[in-house]
Order: sequence, then structure tokens, then C-alpha cells
Amino acid sequence: MSRSEHFDVSWKRTVRCGELSLDQEDNKVVLNGWVRRRRDLGGLIFIELWDYTGVTQVVINPELVPEVHERAKSLRSEFVISVHGKVRKRPEGTVNLSMKTGEIEVVAEDFMLLSPAAPLPFEVSDATNKVDENLRLRYRYLDLRRDKMQRNLRIRNQIIRFTRDFLARYDFVDIETPMLTKSTPEGARDYLVPSRVNPGTFYALPQSPQIFKQILMVSGFDRYYQIVKCFRDEDLRADRQPEFTQIDMEMSFITEEDIYALVEEFMAGLFREIAQVDIPTPFRKMDYWEAMDRFGSDKPDLRIPFEIHDVAYIFKESDFAPFKDLLAKGGYVRGLPLPGGASLSRKEVSLVEEKAKKLGASGLACFQFKEGCLKGPLVKFLSEEQRQRLVEKAALHEGDAFFVLGDLNRSVASQILGQLRLDLAKEHNLMDRDKWEFLWVVHFPLFERDEEENRWVAVHHPFTSPVIEDLPFLDSEPQKVRSRAYDCVLNGNEIGGGSIRIHDPEIQEKVFQCLAFSREEARKRFGFLLDALSSGTPPHGGIAFGVDRLVMLLCGASSIRDVMAFPKTQKAQCLMSGAPSFVSQEQLDELHIDSLAEEDQE
Amino acid sequence: MSRSEHFDVSWKRTVRCGELSLDQEDNKVVLNGWVRRRRDLGGLIFIELWDYTGVTQVVINPELVPEVHERAKSLRSEFVISVHGKVRKRPEGTVNLSMKTGEIEVVAEDFMLLSPAAPLPFEVSDATNKVDENLRLRYRYLDLRRDKMQRNLRIRNQIIRFTRDFLARYDFVDIETPMLTKSTPEGARDYLVPSRVNPGTFYALPQSPQIFKQILMVSGFDRYYQIVKCFRDEDLRADRQPEFTQIDMEMSFITEEDIYALVEEFMAGLFREIAQVDIPTPFRKMDYWEAMDRFGSDKPDLRIPFEIHDVAYIFKESDFAPFKDLLAKGGYVRGLPLPGGASLSRKEVSLVEEKAKKLGASGLACFQFKEGCLKGPLVKFLSEEQRQRLVEKAALHEGDAFFVLGDLNRSVASQILGQLRLDLAKEHNLMDRDKWEFLWVVHFPLFERDEEENRWVAVHHPFTSPVIEDLPFLDSEPQKVRSRAYDCVLNGNEIGGGSIRIHDPEIQEKVFQCLAFSREEARKRFGFLLDALSSGTPPHGGIAFGVDRLVMLLCGASSIRDVMAFPKTQKAQCLMSGAPSFVSQEQLDELHIDSLAEEDQE
Repeated sequence: MSRSEHFDVSWKRTVRCGELSLDQEDNKVVLNGWVRRRRDLGGLIFIELWDYTGVTQVVINPELVPEVHERAKSLRSEFVISVHGKVRKRPEGTVNLSMKTGEIEVVAEDFMLLSPAAPLPFEVSDATNKVDENLRLRYRYLDLRRDKMQRNLRIRNQIIRFTRDFLARYDFVDIETPMLTKSTPEGARDYLVPSRVNPGTFYALPQSPQIFKQILMVSGFDRYYQIVKCFRDEDLRADRQPEFTQIDMEMSFITEEDIYALVEEFMAGLFREIAQVDIPTPFRKMDYWEAMDRFGSDKPDLRIPFEIHDVAYIFKESDFAPFKDLLAKGGYVRGLPLPGGASLSRKEVSLVEEKAKKLGASGLACFQFKEGCLKGPLVKFLSEEQRQRLVEKAALHEGDAFFVLGDLNRSVASQILGQLRLDLAKEHNLMDRDKWEFLWVVHFPLFERDEEENRWVAVHHPFTSPVIEDLPFLDSEPQKVRSRAYDCVLNGNEIGGGSIRIHDPEIQEKVFQCLAFSREEARKRFGFLLDALSSGTPPHGGIAFGVDRLVMLLCGASSIRDVMAFPKTQKAQCLMSGAPSFVSQEQLDELHIDSLAEEDQE
Repeated sequence: MSRSEHFDVSWKRTVRCGELSLDQEDNKVVLNGWVRRRRDLGGLIFIELWDYTGVTQVVINPELVPEVHERAKSLRSEFVISVHGKVRKRPEGTVNLSMKTGEIEVVAEDFMLLSPAAPLPFEVSDATNKVDENLRLRYRYLDLRRDKMQRNLRIRNQIIRFTRDFLARYDFVDIETPMLTKSTPEGARDYLVPSRVNPGTFYALPQSPQIFKQILMVSGFDRYYQIVKCFRDEDLRADRQPEFTQIDMEMSFITEEDIYALVEEFMAGLFREIAQVDIPTPFRKMDYWEAMDRFGSDKPDLRIPFEIHDVAYIFKESDFAPFKDLLAKGGYVRGLPLPGGASLSRKEVSLVEEKAKKLGASGLACFQFKEGCLKGPLVKFLSEEQRQRLVEKAALHEGDAFFVLGDLNRSVASQILGQLRLDLAKEHNLMDRDKWEFLWVVHFPLFERDEEENRWVAVHHPFTSPVIEDLPFLDSEPQKVRSRAYDCVLNGNEIGGGSIRIHDPEIQEKVFQCLAFSREEARKRFGFLLDALSSGTPPHGGIAFGVDRLVMLLCGASSIRDVMAFPKTQKAQCLMSGAPSFVSQEQLDELHIDSLAEEDQE
């Protein structure tokens, strides 16, 4: 009989490791857990015994239990044991108030080894953060034992629970949509699943339940939600995962205001519960173009206390020819203040300029406001009055700097300054990291130009409703059409996005036309949605939040991988299980597919 | 501007269709919903306006609002409208108490058409049940508007919510495991997902999160649960789906008794909440072989009040040579009583015999107990005392029948009678359909023989712990080893199953050996689990419940397709979206695969 198969009721824990205090003094207890540390001190063996609730110190005294003490010598870190013992107050001078259970210890009477542990690749402690991440991912079961990972996944669980309770309170129905769906690629690539039963055909894993949730509104479900896995086969950027989790919701007979109100109440409640902070509501709202012009981003970080200013009207009348010419050609001249930037050395200023050039600027002019005077190479091109207006416009204070650039493209001009704004704020520590700045960015353009394909593509997705007043532009000037889309932005992160959808099949077909889908193509791909829209569709809209990023922000984690149990690497691999892996030829044969890759492994 | 894009706050509902009663008499209201029916009666137009809460009758009077009345003439079934009107008590004689809102009606002042509906393939009403299921699946958005489907999916939501609340109360943590996992086929086929980034390799969609949940126990999470999609690429039997949902849980430092207690409390609570019935606990427990011998099934339906009896010892001493010979060779002779079966005609009896033969019996003998006497062709081979013992053994009453058969194989003998038991109980309406009979079937064999592959295979999965006392048989007589597996059976349905797992890597390796996995094969497929088990593993176990079947039983539905929003057909197709479908060659190229099927479509 194996050492570890004796576990029965007599060895089952009566209390958890983190639950003991002086209240249990003199109680007999059974503890089950992991040996976090063993120390031999003055003949005694001390064991820090861990479970998810905390750690208790166990003492094994050779004079009391010589046989037990002898056996305990072979205990190593991460062995799993069951201990019988008695709770006692720690002796004077050994109380450890930094530990929850630091006033007591358990004097062992007996223990059983439940499971040994082979020598470990790294120690289980929060110092493990410094361990190479690939090693942590390979031995994820050890990594997950760390307090930080335990805490992150339990906060994730709390966030999910809060979300479900909140939405249930508002009559949302949790409805599961299929994972094996139809491939309708538009935007990102689909993950495909070959069908064995229907040779030559493939399912796609959903990029989002978008079409299904709209169809649930057509079905009369009124309020739907789901916390659901979605899939995108992208070339993974730093913090993306091939599968991710979405809080997905949709409502009928509503307008934007209903979504805003619901989400604001949700977020305020969530942040109160999880982070103990009060989020003021309603959130600020900003049009897409205002966000772009003022912050050079469609997800402005409002914790940064300075923003982009349009100074074209000042330079238009100046003697500085390059800007004057640019403006005459319809270009843009904009600037970004940097509080305290007047103290930057010439070298530091030129580093900023270099960065701007890397981002695509043709140049960057720096003004510094020192001793009441504007200084810098371009000052001489400005009249006294123009200088005064510049200082006022950018609200410069003594000691600030102001970076100015020009570009023919409105977005480019702003985006470069927007990126500088983020970098400079970080570098010079110019934002309040304890703040939570929510913002709605609204009225995105409905379309953007795909120059490669030489056609219009949907900025969000093709089911987004145009703003009613802009409908007349749909044929003539599609770039002018605003959408009823809204993004929810938190501290510069897009944490959610949604829209009021098209509920009129005629408008839907028109939008497909703008996207250069032929009627046949549209029917082939989305015919079932068009049919559904033609069978009595309520006005509807919704929103989806990325769970991984939201949890990451609330946990104060620096990567979404730290808030997922089993994340994949940037190469979309699971280092623990070895997925994806080669499979047998029989499996491929049954699926009517062949692999074209040369097997250079196995 | 399109007819349907005007929807704004002035047309937004102030109350839902099912919420009106005399309390709101004389109130002005706005209703949004679907026209379920339009009737023109004596100049008035009556509209039954539906939303998910119910139906309200709207009256449009040409004398009050002639223009509105004129427009209303074009309203058809399933059009979506918004109605302004005033609540009034229905006139004497038109009150309809079978309707929740049957005491009132809304006198329309104005309405707006939000969305028309094309002519529909079938009417939205519960009579639609008779509509061909394929048509219902094709137009699922209409089918889902029916009261029955609305109710089923909302009950499903309630069941899921109850489950989550219950498990959270017991400290279970909801942790997401990956959908893109490693293919480790054993039992059913995996659905595969080709990897674009890692040419030639494939992910598998999980058949269950089994390995991951065990690894979470190794990680110290102590109590895990997840309500999760699982996938099996099987040839679909009547009531299976390629993707299905599982309530999946796992606990550390426990034994079977902890699982039983938890599940019993869960089920009792669930059935109280959803079905308003009291389920007695603890549930009955039955060893696998007892269930097989007495009911011919590993999931006995205990609502049926008769069972199989072993009558070998009676026939061993009888003059009936075929049974005597069979028994001498180590065979089995068993019988099934049929209450009231003495009134079966000779023809009816021979139909039962035919069915038994179809199931594999070499013959079936019938005894009928009439007027205090046992009758039937075999009676003459039995002594008076033997007859008496037969009547007593099978607890026959006046009017009953008793069917007897013999077979060399213990399971076959019982399984044939077990199937007859189900069929006869159904046919003769011999069970209480209002009963809820729960049962634990325990101690399944660990292995069964796969004659084709000439090796032992796991009855459940290869991570199931053997019963400790049976460990010595592991090498010598694997068929004798019982497992610590348990199935939860309800009314003859296996609604859940689980086990105490192996937490000792040595035993795990030994089991892999019994399954004829070479050490290399085991390492290649499950190396990461073996490594995890070797790094400090608590004793652990769990269980998983099939959500679809559980919901089906609680809804009184006859198919799991009626408790899923978007099910697939037996050919694993979604008739609404057309999944699976052909994809572009570009998509396949990117995935480094080629389709070997000839495209006979498109």
C-alpha cells in the first residue's frame, strides 16, 4: 500500500492553516497543507505549513514525539502533509505580528506524508517574480501557489461574481452562444476547426458573440449577457492572448444613454467593492475627434494633466515660413506643454525631438518658459503678442516647456504629440497613479479607408448603426458618417466598446454596400442575420468588456498573463502542456485534411 | 430618414407588456413590443402586443385616432412597434382572466413602426412544437420567441445562477481553463484547431478540463469550479451535441463522503428552488455490480417499481435442461417481473420475447400468475416447491408476469432484462413520472477490456484512483480493481460523474502501464501532469454535471436542443448560420493545411 493512499477522515483537516488564533488555544487540530519551509533550530523542527488561507507554524519536539521528529527530518519544501497537534500560545519573544497566525503555533503530535515533491525549479515565494517568466509558465502549478497569483485569481473570481450579480439584478439573462460557429472573417483571422462529419467544411471559433447576441434581441430576450471566451488568431502583440474573456451584453428598446447609465453604475459598484474607491458618475464623454485633437488618442489617459493645443492661428501670422506654408496647404500646427520642462537640457530636448521624428514628425520645436520669457529657436519668428498668445493658449507657467510640430495630416499631428504625452508623463512622473479616470469616447467614424484594399472598412464592425443625421452622407461622403459607437476608456486603456446596432435590414444592406460587399457576398456571409433583421427587430445595442485587462487594472498587475491561470506565450504556446502539438496522421485523415508543414520536430 | 431610426426617449417603453394591471388604470403608458396578433372587429383594431413579460391588448379606435387607425391596418404579425396609450379597465364581458393583463387594455393614442417583418415561415406560438424541427432551427430567432423556449432558457439561467451562488457560498473559486489545449485523445475524438503560428501543430478543444482542474488542486486552489463548454467529436447519438456545458468542480483534502454531502445539499437546494420539491438526502448508494444485477444498468431508473431477480438457484435443481446446462457452465438465469403482466395475451407475450431476442437473448420464458397458480410453458419443469419459491423470490402477486432468460455472460443477462424493464414500464405506464429518484452508483470497475485493441482501457479516465484495498490486483487481475468513481443518477439518467483522483505519481504511472501506455508514450502525452503530481499534490477529487441534461429534466423538456439557444443537428450543423461551411483557400494556406475533401458544393 502506498504511503499516500491512507488519507481518510482521521487525517482530514479540522481547520485551515490561516484560520488559527489565540481563540483556539489548547484545541486539538488537524491541519493539511504544504511545507513552505522547514527549519531545524535547537533540536526542534519548525515547519511553516501553507494552504490558501495562510501559514501556521508547526513545532516538532524530539522530546515529546521522537519517532515523529525523526520522520520529519526528511520533509522538504512543498511536500504535502497532514498534521495532528495542539494549538498553543507562542513563547514570549517569538510572537510574529506580521503573520495572521503569528500569536500561536501548533505542537505536532503526529503527521502523515500525503505527497512528496521532487526538487523544484524555483522557490514558491513572491520573490519568484524575478524568475524567468517562461520557467514560471512551464511550472505553472508552482507559480500559481504564490500569494500574488492566488490573490489575482481570487480577485478575478470576485470581479466575475460581482458582474453576474449586478447584471442579474437588472434582469439580464445569461445565455450561451456557440463556440463552433461560422467563419465570417472581417478584421482579425478566425481560428478554424475542421469538421469530420461534413468533409471539406470548417467551423470558426467566435471572435465575439456579436451576431448571436443580436439574434437573441431579435428573439425577444430583451437583456442578454454572457461572460464568454473569444478567439482571435492575430500576431500577438505584447499583451494579447489567442483566447480571451469578454463580459458581453446586449439590450433591446434602448438608446446610448441606457448603456452609459448601466455601465457607470456597474463600474462604480465594482470599484467600490474591489478597490474601495468612489468613482464619480456620470463619466465624461468626448467625441472621437475631440479626443484625437486634444490627446492624440482614441483612448486618452486623463490622469495626465496636460494636453495638446492647436496653435495654427498663432503661427499662421508668424514669420516662420515652414509652418506658414504648411498651414496654407491645409496642414496642422499643434503643441504639447510639458510642466517643468523648462529645466530640460539641450540634450534632453533633442532626445524628445528624436523620439518625435521616430514617430513620424518632420521636426519638433521646443519653447521653454523661463523667468517670464519664452525661449527657443523659433521665438524670434513670433511677435511679442504672438508669444503672449502662445503662453496663454497652452496655459504655460514659469518653468514649463512647449513642444510644437506641424503635419499635413490631422491625425498624424495629434498622434505623435499624443505618444509624446504618454512617454513624457511617464518619464517625468507627471500623473497621479492612484486615480481612476473613466471616459466615454463616442461618435467614432463609421468607416475608415483601407488603402491596401482600396475600400472602406468598418471601424468597429459592420453592424454598427450610423448617426441618424449622417445617413445622407452614406452614399456620397462615407468618411463623414459618424457611428453610434462608444468606447469605455479607463486610464488610457480601452476596457470596453459597443454600439447601438443597425436594426433596419435596409440600412444594413446599404452599409454592406459601402463596405464593397456584393449583395451575394453579403447574403452568403450574413444572410441569416439579414433574414433575422427582417423578421421584427427591436432597436438594440450593447457593449463588451475585456475581462483580462479589467482584472489586470484592478489587481494592479502589469500583464494580463498574471491574471489568467494558464496563459499562452507570444507564440501562442502553452509551455506547461506543450499545446499546440503534432497529432497523429489518423486524426488528420479522419478530418479530411493534410498538414502542409514539414515536421521538423518530434 | 428611415422609418425605424427615430427611436428615442419619447418612444421608449415606460412599462413592459406583462406588467400592466388595474393598478395602472388611467395611466398614460408607452409600450414596446411585437404584434403577436391583429384583429379587426367592429371597426376597432385589437393588437396583442408581446414582450418577454407577457401580452397586453391594445385597442385602436378609428373615431378617436383616425390617422393612427389607418396606419395600423398595415400591421402584421411580429412587426415591432412602440405604442402611446392609456390604460383602461376592459369593458364588461371582455375581461380575460386567463391572461395576466386580462382585466385591462391600452387605448392607443399613437404608435410608431419600429421594424416590419417579412412573411414568416411559421407562426410564433407554442403550437409551433408541431412544426418540423429543422424549420425551427433554421429560423431559430422566431422559435426562441415562443413562450416555451423563453421559459426554458430562463430556467436554465436560474439553474446556472443557483449553482454559482451555491458553490461560491462553499468557497469554490471560478477559474477559467483554456479552450485551446493539447490533444490527448483517449476515448472520444478531439476537435482540432490548426495553429498558424506553429506550422504543422494543432490545438485540441477540451473534452473536459480534467487535467487542468487537477493541476489547479496541485496549485493550492483547494476548491475550483467552472461552468464550461466541452467538446466531443462523436458520431452524434440522438441527444448529444458536439459542444456541451458542464458544471465542473474539484476539491482538495477530501474523500468521497465530502463530494456526496456537497452534491446532495446542492441538488436538494436546486430542486427546491426550481421545481419546488423536497429531495430526501442522503441519496441511496449502490455498487456498480449491484446496479447491474438488479437493474441491468449502471444508471437505474428507480421510479420503476420492479427489478431483476436471480433465479439460478431455483432452476439449477429444476428439470429444465437448457438452464441446468447453462448454469453448470457458469451461466446466469435471471428474471423480471411485470406487475399486471398476467393479462398479456399470447401475442403480447411473444412480442416481448421478440424484443428480448433482438437485444441478444437466446430466448425468453414467460410465467403468468393467475388464480393463485403459476402458468406458462416452463411450469411443468418446476416442482410445486420450486414454483412457490419462484413466486416468493420475485414477489409475484396475483395478476403479475415473470420473464426469465439465461446467458453465459453476467452483464448481458442483466442488460437485456434491464432494457425490457425500461420498455415495459414505459409501455404499461408503470412508473410515477412526478418522482425524482436520485442514486449514487459507486465502485465502477477501474478498467474494461477493449477486445479490438486487445488491451485494458479506463472505464472513466486514466486519472481515477483505484480502491486502496484493490491495489494488489493492479498487476495480476486488473478486472478486479474497483475505482473510486461515482456517478450521480437521476431517474435513469447519468447527470454527473466523478472520482477521487490518483494523487500519487507512482500509482499514476502504474495505471498508465495497465493501459499499455509505454513510459515514453505516457510522458509524451501526460508528462506535465506527472510532473505536477510530483511537486506536492493534495489528495483530491471532483465531479462534473452535464448542464444540458440537468436543465432538460428540470424543464420537463424532451430534448436537450430545447434548452439550448443555438443547438446543432445530428450532423453537427447549425441550420441557422450554416456552420460548418467552406472557407477560402487563403485561410487554409495560412494555416498550413489542405482540405482533402472534394468540394461538391458551393
